[in-house]
Amino acid sequence: MKDTKQVSKAVIKRLPRYRRYVRELKKKKIDRISSNELSGIMGYTASQIRQDLNNFGGFGQQGYGYNIESLDKELSNILGLKMKYTMVIMGAGNLGQAIANYTSQRENFSLISMFDINPRLIGIKLNEIPVRDYDEVTEFVKENNIDIGVICTGKRNAQQVADRLIEGGIKGIWNFAPIDLNLPEDMLVENVHLSDSLHSLTYHISKKFMDDEE
Amino acid sequence: MKDTKQVSKAVIKRLPRYRRYVRELKKKKIDRISSNELSGIMGYTASQIRQDLNNFGGFGQQGYGYNIESLDKELSNILGLKMKYTMVIMGAGNLGQAIANYTSQRENFSLISMFDINPRLIGIKLNEIPVRDYDEVTEFVKENNIDIGVICTGKRNAQQVADRLIEGGIKGIWNFAPIDLNLPEDMLVENVHLSDSLHSLTYHISKKFMDDEE
Repeated sequence: MKDTKQVSKAVIKRLPRYRRYVRELKKKKIDRISSNELSGIMGYTASQIRQDLNNFGGFGQQGYGYNIESLDKELSNILGLKMKYTMVIMGAGNLGQAIANYTSQRENFSLISMFDINPRLIGIKLNEIPVRDYDEVTEFVKENNIDIGVICTGKRNAQQVADRLIEGGIKGIWNFAPIDLNLPEDMLVENVHLSDSLHSLTYHISKKFMDDEE
Repeated sequence: MKDTKQVSKAVIKRLPRYRRYVRELKKKKIDRISSNELSGIMGYTASQIRQDLNNFGGFGQQGYGYNIESLDKELSNILGLKMKYTMVIMGAGNLGQAIANYTSQRENFSLISMFDINPRLIGIKLNEIPVRDYDEVTEFVKENNIDIGVICTGKRNAQQVADRLIEGGIKGIWNFAPIDLNLPEDMLVENVHLSDSLHSLTYHISKKFMDDEE
């Protein structure tokens, strides 16, 4: 595996956020923005913004700022969003269907199949996406060269499901199950920890509303 | 609004993650851990860990490290998790039901009602949680002193639903709708941006698998 530039994990984590803000600005028909203005909106310092974006060739110009259109294009390219990814969702329950619904609205992702263990779901289609048996996923991923496996199962099945995806040659896992999966070291995985944002919220609520009571 | 200590936003964002790791260690029957060991697991530097936790009174002891049990207790307290929060979910579709399912498994949250616009859902119960009409939410939040409103509606209804929650006196909003809500400045909100983690994943997949093709 080669790595042309060594960009820190923290920077990479911030890039999707940059892209979101840039696309909001684009929607508002804004052409360009300075790192200072971007700082005001995003809450990072202007110098951090310049540093972050410099990692990728620095598409800003001094005294002009960043061109929104080209910044959007660059960020999308960097984030791998000039191509399309095939996807399967493991678990066709509420969460799986919510994610199916979510990805169906994004042009970069093509949901090929869902998988479940429940005999009442296997064989049917949900919003035109067929639901197949967990047992078939390894073969399916192999044959269809699936890029991303989304784990929307409960805690209990998540590890087994991950193992099967990997056996099939999946490229990356988007994990919603609330466990730390045991994966080969070079496996690409993104864990969505809902509790992290919920607990940030309880932190702020308890600070604002409940400190007085103590 | 008072604020006893001024702790940076970035630190607060990291606390739920500390708590998650600490609880994993607890499950593994580990009693104590040094900042160096914690650094090895979490990927933050040991000095950052010490700095972060120092913000809250520094419950580590030199040469001994952190006591897992008390670190868990302290972090839970700081995050406001010694109390219980009442909650309503706006939108009883797949996402709303998935979140209902998720929170039902956490002891700190008590889901009181769901709300929807769909006449086929209004009046029924989903997993014993009643579904009410969007129109009733302001009164309901007021009368039942609801702490947290979770927005699981589509983009289109999210702003209106947020306005109604706020009118009812909601303390915090957990927003899953993919828009930036227009909120009073002192309103507490946590936005869950699914795209951020998905795009981190595409970044890594495209770097690892697709650079060669260019």
